[in-house]
Amino acid sequence: MKLIKIGMIGFGNVGHGFIQALIEKRTFFRNELGLEFVVTAITDIRYGTIYAPDGLPLKELVSAKDFYGMDPSFYQDWNTIQMIRNAESDVIIELSFTDLKTGEPAVLHCQEALLSGKHVITSNKGPIALHYSMLKGLARDNGVKIGCEGTVMSGTPALRLATDSLLITGISEIKGILNGTTNFILTEMEHGSTYAEALKEAQILGYAEADPSGDVEGFDTAGKIAILSHLVFGTFIKPEDIEREGISDITLDDVQKALKDKLHWKLIGAVKKTENGVEASVKPVLLHEDNPLANIKGAGNAIQYRSDLLGEITLIGPGAGRKETAAALIEDLIHIVQ
Amino acid sequence: MKLIKIGMIGFGNVGHGFIQALIEKRTFFRNELGLEFVVTAITDIRYGTIYAPDGLPLKELVSAKDFYGMDPSFYQDWNTIQMIRNAESDVIIELSFTDLKTGEPAVLHCQEALLSGKHVITSNKGPIALHYSMLKGLARDNGVKIGCEGTVMSGTPALRLATDSLLITGISEIKGILNGTTNFILTEMEHGSTYAEALKEAQILGYAEADPSGDVEGFDTAGKIAILSHLVFGTFIKPEDIEREGISDITLDDVQKALKDKLHWKLIGAVKKTENGVEASVKPVLLHEDNPLANIKGAGNAIQYRSDLLGEITLIGPGAGRKETAAALIEDLIHIVQ
Repeated sequence: MKLIKIGMIGFGNVGHGFIQALIEKRTFFRNELGLEFVVTAITDIRYGTIYAPDGLPLKELVSAKDFYGMDPSFYQDWNTIQMIRNAESDVIIELSFTDLKTGEPAVLHCQEALLSGKHVITSNKGPIALHYSMLKGLARDNGVKIGCEGTVMSGTPALRLATDSLLITGISEIKGILNGTTNFILTEMEHGSTYAEALKEAQILGYAEADPSGDVEGFDTAGKIAILSHLVFGTFIKPEDIEREGISDITLDDVQKALKDKLHWKLIGAVKKTENGVEASVKPVLLHEDNPLANIKGAGNAIQYRSDLLGEITLIGPGAGRKETAAALIEDLIHIVQ
Repeated sequence: MKLIKIGMIGFGNVGHGFIQALIEKRTFFRNELGLEFVVTAITDIRYGTIYAPDGLPLKELVSAKDFYGMDPSFYQDWNTIQMIRNAESDVIIELSFTDLKTGEPAVLHCQEALLSGKHVITSNKGPIALHYSMLKGLARDNGVKIGCEGTVMSGTPALRLATDSLLITGISEIKGILNGTTNFILTEMEHGSTYAEALKEAQILGYAEADPSGDVEGFDTAGKIAILSHLVFGTFIKPEDIEREGISDITLDDVQKALKDKLHWKLIGAVKKTENGVEASVKPVLLHEDNPLANIKGAGNAIQYRSDLLGEITLIGPGAGRKETAAALIEDLIHIVQ
C-alpha cells in the first residue's frame, strides 16, 4: 500500500466534493490501485489552517463543511505559504479563487508547492492560462508534476483526450462549447425566453453570478482556449489577446429565426494552427443541427478536435459542478502518483 | 533515438494506411518522441513474406500495394508463424481477417508473438473479444504488452478514454453506435430510402459486404460490446451469448413515423454492471433527438459512458476507415514503446 499525503488550499464546494470522492472511492483505491490517501492539511481563507500529519478526519469535515467543530489541536497559525512549506504532504490541491488577469494568488501557491518538491493539482484556470510554461519548468526541475484536467471541462477529460490519445494524430484545430452558463442561456432562448429572462433563470439556478460578465462576455471561454492552445499546441496566447465577443447582443428573434433554418446559435471558443502560430477566437457562431456541437443543450459542454488522421472527434460531457470537478482532481491525482 | 522494429501480418487496406501514417509522421516521431520505426517483415496470405532486418522500403511498398516489385532478396520462404519467430522485430501488428466465432488465425498469431517476447497490436476483434484474458496473461508473463484500441471505434480512442481516464469515476453503463454500416442505412431511411435501397447504397459505397449479415444482424456490434465488457468491466461475455437483434425488420414507415415525434431508430450496443455480473444487448432502440446518440448521422460512431461522478460522457468519431484504423495502431504503438 502506497500512502499519499495531500494538502489542500481552499475548502469550498469543490473541496468538499473532492473529500467526498476520496471517501467514496477509498475501497477502490486500496483494492484496485494499492493507494491510500490522507488529507494532512487544509487552508481556507475563511477558516484558517488545520493540520494533522497522520490525516484529518474526512467524514467529519465533509459533514461540517467548515473547521469550527475540529479538534483544537488541529489548528495551526500558518498562512497558505507556511502550510505549503511546513505541512507533510506529497501533493498540493490548489482550489483558491480564479483571477484570469494575474492568476494570483494561485500562481504563488503553485510555485511554492513545486519549489517544495510537491506535486500540484488545480482546477484553477488562472495559473494555467497565464503561467503554464513557468510552472511546468518548475515542476520538471523539482522532479514533480502538475495536473490541470479540471481547468477546461471539469472531469470530462478534454485535455487528457488530446494530450494522451490524439496528439499523434496531428490535431490542427480545436472548437468547443466550454461555458455552461452561456449555453444554458442560449438553450432557454430557443425555448422562448428573452436574453434577460434566461440570464435571470441562470442566476437563480446558480449557473451565473450576480455580475455575469465573466461568462456572457466570453472571458471564461477565452481562458480555457488559452489553456488548450498552450497544452495541445504548445503555443502561449494571453486570454486578453484572444478575439472575443459575448452573447449579450443576441436577441430572442435571432435565436428563433435561426431555429427555423435548423441552425443554433452557440458561443464557440476556437483555436487553430496556422503558418504564423495559432489563431484563436471566442464568439457566437451559427451551427447547423448536423454538427454535434449544435445539439448540446442546457449547461452541457463539448469539445471538437480536428486531426489529419481522424477528422473530427467530439467529446461531450459536463463542464462544471462539484462532483464533476472533484472527478478531474481525482483523475489527475491517480495519474500523477501511479 | 530509440529504434523500433515492426513485423506486420496482413498487407491490405489498413496495412497500407499504417505504413502511410508511419511515413507521414516520421519527422514527428523522430523530433518530438525520439522514436524511429522500421518495418522489417510483412506476411500476407496473398503475397507471402518479405523481410529486411534493417527495414523494408516503405514508400515503394505503399505505392506498389503488393510485394511483386520488391528486391528478390527480400523474399523469405516463411509462413506467418515462422515470420513471427524468425524476423527481428519488437512489435507484431496483427491485421489478418476477423472471425468472431473462433478468433483464428489471429489468436494463434498473437499467442506466438507474445510467447516470442514481442508486443502485439491488433485491430482484429476476434482474438480480443474471445481470448483477451489469455492474451493479457501471456503478455504479462513475457514482459510485453497488447494494444487493441482499433477493435472498437478505429482511431477514436473509445477504449483509452475509459481505461485511462474514466475508470476511476466508476463507469456503470456503456452504450454506443458501434457499427457505421447500420447507422448509414438508418440515416438513409430517415432521408426516405427503403431498407433494401439503403442497404444497396451501403454496398455500392463499400460500407456493407455482399453478405451484410455481420453488420445488419448486429454480430459486429456484439463483438465490440464483448470487448468493452472485458476491458472496462473486467467481465468476459461471449459475443454469441449477447442478446442480439438486427435492423433488417425496421421499415421505412417505422423510421418516418418516429421522426415525426423527434425520435430516431438507432442500433445500440449496450452493457451495464448489475449485481449478477453484466447485462449486454444489441438491438434497435428509439432515441429522442436530445440524446447525443440520436444525432449521429451516416457512418459515424459514438459511445456513451455513464459514471457516478460524471454522469454521461459521449465520444463521437469515425468507427472505421483505412487512415482511422491506422491511427489506432499508431496510438497503441506509441503508448506501448514509450
